[in-house]
Amino acid sequence: MRVILDAHGGDNAPLEAIKGAALAAKEYGCTVVLCGNEPELRALAEQEKISLDNLEFLQADDVITMEDEPGSVLKAHKDCSMAVGLRAVAAGEGDAFISAGSTGALLMGATFLVKRIKGVSRPAIGSVLPSEKAPYLLLDMGANVECRPEMLFQFAHMGHLYMSHVLKHGEPASVGLLNVGTEDTKGGEIQKAAFALLKESDLPFIGNVEARDVPAGVADVVVTDGFSGNVLLKTMEGTASMIMHNLKGVFFKNTRSKLAALMVKGGLSDLKKLMDTAEYGGAPILGVKRPVIKAHGNSNARAFKNAIRVALEFAEADVISKIETALTAEKEGEPVE
Amino acid sequence: MRVILDAHGGDNAPLEAIKGAALAAKEYGCTVVLCGNEPELRALAEQEKISLDNLEFLQADDVITMEDEPGSVLKAHKDCSMAVGLRAVAAGEGDAFISAGSTGALLMGATFLVKRIKGVSRPAIGSVLPSEKAPYLLLDMGANVECRPEMLFQFAHMGHLYMSHVLKHGEPASVGLLNVGTEDTKGGEIQKAAFALLKESDLPFIGNVEARDVPAGVADVVVTDGFSGNVLLKTMEGTASMIMHNLKGVFFKNTRSKLAALMVKGGLSDLKKLMDTAEYGGAPILGVKRPVIKAHGNSNARAFKNAIRVALEFAEADVISKIETALTAEKEGEPVE
Repeated sequence: MRVILDAHGGDNAPLEAIKGAALAAKEYGCTVVLCGNEPELRALAEQEKISLDNLEFLQADDVITMEDEPGSVLKAHKDCSMAVGLRAVAAGEGDAFISAGSTGALLMGATFLVKRIKGVSRPAIGSVLPSEKAPYLLLDMGANVECRPEMLFQFAHMGHLYMSHVLKHGEPASVGLLNVGTEDTKGGEIQKAAFALLKESDLPFIGNVEARDVPAGVADVVVTDGFSGNVLLKTMEGTASMIMHNLKGVFFKNTRSKLAALMVKGGLSDLKKLMDTAEYGGAPILGVKRPVIKAHGNSNARAFKNAIRVALEFAEADVISKIETALTAEKEGEPVE
Repeated sequence: MRVILDAHGGDNAPLEAIKGAALAAKEYGCTVVLCGNEPELRALAEQEKISLDNLEFLQADDVITMEDEPGSVLKAHKDCSMAVGLRAVAAGEGDAFISAGSTGALLMGATFLVKRIKGVSRPAIGSVLPSEKAPYLLLDMGANVECRPEMLFQFAHMGHLYMSHVLKHGEPASVGLLNVGTEDTKGGEIQKAAFALLKESDLPFIGNVEARDVPAGVADVVVTDGFSGNVLLKTMEGTASMIMHNLKGVFFKNTRSKLAALMVKGGLSDLKKLMDTAEYGGAPILGVKRPVIKAHGNSNARAFKNAIRVALEFAEADVISKIETALTAEKEGEPVE
């Protein structure tokens, strides 16, 4: 397997990207293609004594930043590492593409350079998040702030196939529709229409789910529009950060509390790890013709390594041809697995 | 001041409602009118040795449950304690009304029995929530799942006046519009139009706010539609509950961790208290002609007492006539304070 990595995407690029690529190449035995300024990347690797075993390079002369307009990935910055990498994966020169750069630019680039799967209205960004039971997939988490019911229906199919074959290794992933209550009739017109479509489908649809039950692990896939998906994701991050910050205050109060912190150090570090989205290895962009993963903007080497692992699993499970089959069958009115 | 309390609303009614009323009457020197089945309430108070000082009764023969249709508060259950109490507060027989019963029924009852303030499109439910800095008001938190920009604009005015005069005692409360990013152009059509209205207004509008920054205390009032408001509120509750549950696991692991828990007991209890929405005393229904407060469904005596305190402050600050003045001025194109 060959994974193409945008070496210049993210707050800690290119150093942490190179480190993560080296870790992944060693641990998973895959080839990682570093897309970016080859001389600069080689010099940095040499300086930091990072092994180049199983690493390759794909030259790109430009970089797109967080300040650049997302659309510039197709025009002013069409030769940036993100665009070059996306064109390479689209041409079959790699099995998957990863970037920790601008989400908007990556979505734009994936949609127009890798292109949509036939029948997909709009690609969605999924986010794998922690719950008390097991990680779940939330989608859309910001790509489409306004959604039609048919889009939510497609998100459900794509999310179901991704989770069933990547995170759950073949076990069917349950699907819930985010809503303001669990009753069938809850929500606005969009939720009601999406509910009806999902109820009719052959998906393992568990009905409407409330945001309160999502962190408890109520469903493997939680479907919603990009606006409320973004609100859910960021409220979770903000609340966790507020509690962890206050908890730190509890432990740093005095000598006795500092001693207490030492006594539960392992447990606290597990808790912190549970809430750390970097552990989950990035967000799949679903609905385009090749596996594309958005890694967190502040990814460190470990997060890049995890994103590469997820990209490998995404490619190996052949989720994209499963989505193609499902959407074609759905269109023809046949039952969808 | 006379506060009318629905003695039969909530999971722990009527006992905790009576206890809370007695605590409030003693602590705040107000009169609390218990609305419900007087013989039953008197018998319970006697049995539990609860003082009836400053408590009065208003007989209601029926009760509305969580399973009843919200609309039944106006028809099949028009003589329930909630409806009787709402009619009494509308008639000026009390300064405020509180219920921990069905949110839907209370909103319906408040809208049609207490009636809307002239010019208000739709009443909103505000929720006072904890942040790292100070409590903030989130509205709407579920009454209106679909909102027009003008509704969000009115919510901003009402929320601003409520927070400025109730929780901030005259200091102007800042207003933020919940969005998927902080840039002015973020969001869908509704957010963009609401942003333009708010930008033009004389409110202390700080612009778009992200859900991630809300628990950090970015604004005193956070305005959004009922769908994402509900998602934000419930994600916060669900995330806090997941972390607190895991934290419990960390401390109950072994003898050493249990000892550590004892050493930081005070701090942990403060943290739990910070996250406990019952501390904040209930959610105002804004946009109707009299102060109406929705107390949490699982309110205990302390939560009922806190809700009565908030109801007193709501009435004393005369927020409703301030809203009337503001909306009239806004309509006439004059600057609104």
